[in-house]
Amino acid sequence: MEVLPKNETIALREKHIGKSCQLFYRKDPLKILVGKGQYLYDDKDEAYLDCINNVAHVGHCHPDVVKAGCEQMATLSTNNRFLHDNIVLCAKRLVDTMPEELSVCYFVNSGSEANDLALRLSQIHTGNKDVITLEHAYHGHLTSLIDISHYKFNLPGGVGQKEHVHLASSPDYYRGKFRDSEYRREDLGHMYAQEVKEICNGIEEKGRGVCAYIAESMLSCGGQIILPQGYLQEVYAHVRKAGGVCIADEVQVGFGRVGKHWWSFQMQDVVPDIVTVGKPMGNGHPVAAVITTRAIAESFEKTGVEYFNTYGGNPVSCAIANAVFDVIEKENLRENALVVGEYLLECSQILAKKFEFIGDVRGVGLFTGIEIVKDRSTREPSKEIASYVSCRMKEEHILISTDGPDGNVLKMKPPMVFSKQNVDEVMYALNGIFKEVKETFEFAIAPRPRSDSCSKEARKTMGPSLKEAIIKSI
Amino acid sequence: MEVLPKNETIALREKHIGKSCQLFYRKDPLKILVGKGQYLYDDKDEAYLDCINNVAHVGHCHPDVVKAGCEQMATLSTNNRFLHDNIVLCAKRLVDTMPEELSVCYFVNSGSEANDLALRLSQIHTGNKDVITLEHAYHGHLTSLIDISHYKFNLPGGVGQKEHVHLASSPDYYRGKFRDSEYRREDLGHMYAQEVKEICNGIEEKGRGVCAYIAESMLSCGGQIILPQGYLQEVYAHVRKAGGVCIADEVQVGFGRVGKHWWSFQMQDVVPDIVTVGKPMGNGHPVAAVITTRAIAESFEKTGVEYFNTYGGNPVSCAIANAVFDVIEKENLRENALVVGEYLLECSQILAKKFEFIGDVRGVGLFTGIEIVKDRSTREPSKEIASYVSCRMKEEHILISTDGPDGNVLKMKPPMVFSKQNVDEVMYALNGIFKEVKETFEFAIAPRPRSDSCSKEARKTMGPSLKEAIIKSI
Repeated sequence: MEVLPKNETIALREKHIGKSCQLFYRKDPLKILVGKGQYLYDDKDEAYLDCINNVAHVGHCHPDVVKAGCEQMATLSTNNRFLHDNIVLCAKRLVDTMPEELSVCYFVNSGSEANDLALRLSQIHTGNKDVITLEHAYHGHLTSLIDISHYKFNLPGGVGQKEHVHLASSPDYYRGKFRDSEYRREDLGHMYAQEVKEICNGIEEKGRGVCAYIAESMLSCGGQIILPQGYLQEVYAHVRKAGGVCIADEVQVGFGRVGKHWWSFQMQDVVPDIVTVGKPMGNGHPVAAVITTRAIAESFEKTGVEYFNTYGGNPVSCAIANAVFDVIEKENLRENALVVGEYLLECSQILAKKFEFIGDVRGVGLFTGIEIVKDRSTREPSKEIASYVSCRMKEEHILISTDGPDGNVLKMKPPMVFSKQNVDEVMYALNGIFKEVKETFEFAIAPRPRSDSCSKEARKTMGPSLKEAIIKSI
Repeated sequence: MEVLPKNETIALREKHIGKSCQLFYRKDPLKILVGKGQYLYDDKDEAYLDCINNVAHVGHCHPDVVKAGCEQMATLSTNNRFLHDNIVLCAKRLVDTMPEELSVCYFVNSGSEANDLALRLSQIHTGNKDVITLEHAYHGHLTSLIDISHYKFNLPGGVGQKEHVHLASSPDYYRGKFRDSEYRREDLGHMYAQEVKEICNGIEEKGRGVCAYIAESMLSCGGQIILPQGYLQEVYAHVRKAGGVCIADEVQVGFGRVGKHWWSFQMQDVVPDIVTVGKPMGNGHPVAAVITTRAIAESFEKTGVEYFNTYGGNPVSCAIANAVFDVIEKENLRENALVVGEYLLECSQILAKKFEFIGDVRGVGLFTGIEIVKDRSTREPSKEIASYVSCRMKEEHILISTDGPDGNVLKMKPPMVFSKQNVDEVMYALNGIFKEVKETFEFAIAPRPRSDSCSKEARKTMGPSLKEAIIKSI
């Protein structure tokens, strides 16, 4: 499996892979050779517990998925200009899990391709161009999506905010514009939705038209945020009244991750006009889809412009997606997400009682965020502690990462086969590392170099007590 | 392999797949279940010779490619934020086949994703927005690419030409703006390139800037067109002088299809700034790449905006791409493309001598076009005959299709394992069908319904003599 020694792999990567493609743990990256269930194995055959890879939805290299993919790969892999059962059965499965209005599918290769097509469908259907998107949102790497991804366009070297793009506040009860420290939780959905109403009015006043509102049904890059109750119902009503369509981006959060439902938007009791699905769908294989209403599909058809996606919906991609559906059902993974997710949340809450710098713990199913702060009363974020914890967790052979606009949210969205025992492993390690942090008050308040906080160089500057604590803990 | 009877597949497709996704042979579509080498097999296990699927580059379901994909799929499939040998080896192989200036790769899932990234890199590197593209060109299904694909945006229901998009004439010696009937062949490259120079000047005069010139290195949708000698050298000089970069779209025509070279742009003796590759790369698996210069990669890096593509360059995609490279080399498929391609061209030229309605025959390697006309002197296209031939070829179990702005070019770009015997099969069938056409002069001049010309209904209106000829020939 390994052809080159690690240093040669690094050297070749330096030479031939664009540096904009970043590695995890840049100072000491992992060379991963094997994946199995919720574990990844490096070049020394050491196991790492994977808490972040939501793509390996039913577990890395699940044998049923591999078997389905390989059998089909050996039989036929061609484009969907020929009839094939796999694509129509996959489409039926997708629409069977959704509200009945959502009945027409387009198959593509990635969540990005899905979101781009969703925007195109919206433009064609509404005749409008203006898109309402959330602060800190990320919807994909394509030109059209960078434009609506505040997380990207707002970076210092980013493309900036285009005229057709309108930003609504991230409906974050903890550190958003409206907080549960100042308002009642149950009012926040309405308050954040009102802002979308105002944006719609603003667009109309400028003589422009609302094309679409797009949001993840739970906010990933935005900081593992669960939408406040009632939010999407009100937002959708405002957007539709203004002539726009509503897109639910389920690329990261769909396929039963929330446990109770197949799709996260169902927690908000709404029916989107367009749903985009991706990552978990192929358990690592590039397959994604757009599901929409007959009316929107007909608007597209009426243009007379054919939509052809070379690999979209090919028999292999659909065989794999169908196998993923099978495994979720056969292994009761939605139930598992519910049970293990609740346990993960409970345990995290216990930690929050112990450690002052845990400002908030939130989650649904196997989607959890632990918000790290310098001060509970001000809710000032601590990216430093979060980065440190993430790096130290790697040394404990647990892969966890940080996200959110301030990089201070420890995020977990593990493969759906994650077990209670895995939660115990994570909690044991987190508890130890949080203790190190607590023992080193000076670290908790002193600013540290960015994501390399656990590098050797950084540690030298960490002050003696933490250094000792770490040495002891290893 | 078949789960549903064909009529149920059709019914489910009607219900759940967007109608903008069109089937081949819509009136009587094929249900293909198996692919092997250059053959596809339908639900009755009948074989069809595949002359059009350039994606199944080394042959449908090539066992070495399947083996490499399956072994890797069972071992590890994760994102490129971890080190892995497959991606760096694939990058090295790609750059080793290219001029040394092209040394940095980005891996993506499709030719469309590659072209979108190429445009983004161009914008970042040049700071300009205006793109020069060819008439009738197609560069992909994404929003940014529909904008630069005349083949799509110019349709009656298309989005129209945007301000930043500039159209250069298709450098077609046969039916383009400058023709070999009026000018010397060796002057055409210069004449078409002058037009690009004028476009560059026009952009500058408007106070805008040239971002990129993008063209396929042989024009596929444009009508199987081989660029005139010297064309790209002059074009690239003009574009670079105006501050733009030059993108070679090799998505359809790369990976040794031309035989003599790995890449079609090499026939023009130029070095592009960005090359996009796709389709053949994965022999059906969704993998594609952008290869560029260090300078352009550094401009991207300097923005500080990370580029992350979930599946781009994953170990399975790269294992498959590496296996495709292996097979091309092991089986001497470039040599085969050269030899069989020449034979295909010679045989087509023999047919051209026999049948007046063959206006032109052209090709390099396994990329051939037969241009069908109503009249050799006026070169007036006959979409009717071309469509009829394509439909009748299906009845002869040979898959061939039509392209070009007037739909009158019979195109062939078969898997690279295509043999001389396959050429004989095609020629035998074409000869028979061309005879039918010839015997029916009235058909050749009477306008016919579009792509359904060989449907039962259409045949009824074809006039008695062709009908009889067909009945005889079946």
